[in-house]
Amino acid sequence: MQKEKERSRLTTLCYVERGDAYLMLHRVKKEKDVNKDKWIGIGGHAEAGESPEECIRREAMEETGLVLKDLRFRGIVTFCFRDPKKQGDFENENAAKWDEWEYMCLFTAETDCDVLQECSEGELAWVKKERIKDLELWEGDKIFFRLLDEDAPFFSLKLCYNGSELEEAALNGEPLLL
Amino acid sequence: MQKEKERSRLTTLCYVERGDAYLMLHRVKKEKDVNKDKWIGIGGHAEAGESPEECIRREAMEETGLVLKDLRFRGIVTFCFRDPKKQGDFENENAAKWDEWEYMCLFTAETDCDVLQECSEGELAWVKKERIKDLELWEGDKIFFRLLDEDAPFFSLKLCYNGSELEEAALNGEPLLL
Repeated sequence: MQKEKERSRLTTLCYVERGDAYLMLHRVKKEKDVNKDKWIGIGGHAEAGESPEECIRREAMEETGLVLKDLRFRGIVTFCFRDPKKQGDFENENAAKWDEWEYMCLFTAETDCDVLQECSEGELAWVKKERIKDLELWEGDKIFFRLLDEDAPFFSLKLCYNGSELEEAALNGEPLLL
Repeated sequence: MQKEKERSRLTTLCYVERGDAYLMLHRVKKEKDVNKDKWIGIGGHAEAGESPEECIRREAMEETGLVLKDLRFRGIVTFCFRDPKKQGDFENENAAKWDEWEYMCLFTAETDCDVLQECSEGELAWVKKERIKDLELWEGDKIFFRLLDEDAPFFSLKLCYNGSELEEAALNGEPLLL
């Protein structure tokens, strides 16, 4: 049905912790992927009527086979994307300011399992927390890792990208210096 | 542009506090209104690329003329609605389970202003907290008020309605007894 096929603007992302490592997904399997070659957490788009926690538990099972425990809802991230190839459109002031935008619910969790299944979206790996900064990450994701490390209270982060460049960020409505 | 006209599934709601009262909106002005005759907070649908806090500040200004201060993001509510008039469709197991669903970001705030402008969506009134329970409210909204009163940490609440009847509720993924 149309409603179930609609691609939701609500997405989820989870960093699963095990000891001193996070479970990371290296997006190398799909040719056409906005995250191509980046390392990200696991997650995906909410389906019809799913709550954020239902979505992330389903995605974790589908992508990794893991059952999540101690799920914590850490923040919501408003992502705005502008496609620099479409730049011409923005000379028209009536044009939409953003080519895409979505709301990502960010979780952390733990797990008792350590056997990972094959993931069609990329290669899964447990990466030591101190080595995360050496991975190819989205610029804004470094902001999440900092907030998670600081055990920040629930946050609302807005990240505005022009292509892969982070142009603006705001935390709880206050601009962040980049 | 199409993208700006799209009705977002992300909405916001704010209970503005002043002393021992909340600002409530009695939805009596529109004939065709899912909230017809109910008392709710102020808020509305996010526009293209708006963060939840940008949306609620814009909606508060448009609906009431108030500038919000001490804005606190209290929870996210996944609403699912089934229209009992369309019940027949659900005999087809391939049909979508829900007729509508949305994600509502719930805020509280204070304000220094007390002059309210006319609101096209309904009648605005400051209602003493102890009298809120006497208003015509959605059943699930009583759950928010309880969580706000208890100063609960950030929560994710799922509310499933069949028409105006609350059939299921879950708090942080755990079913609530109704």
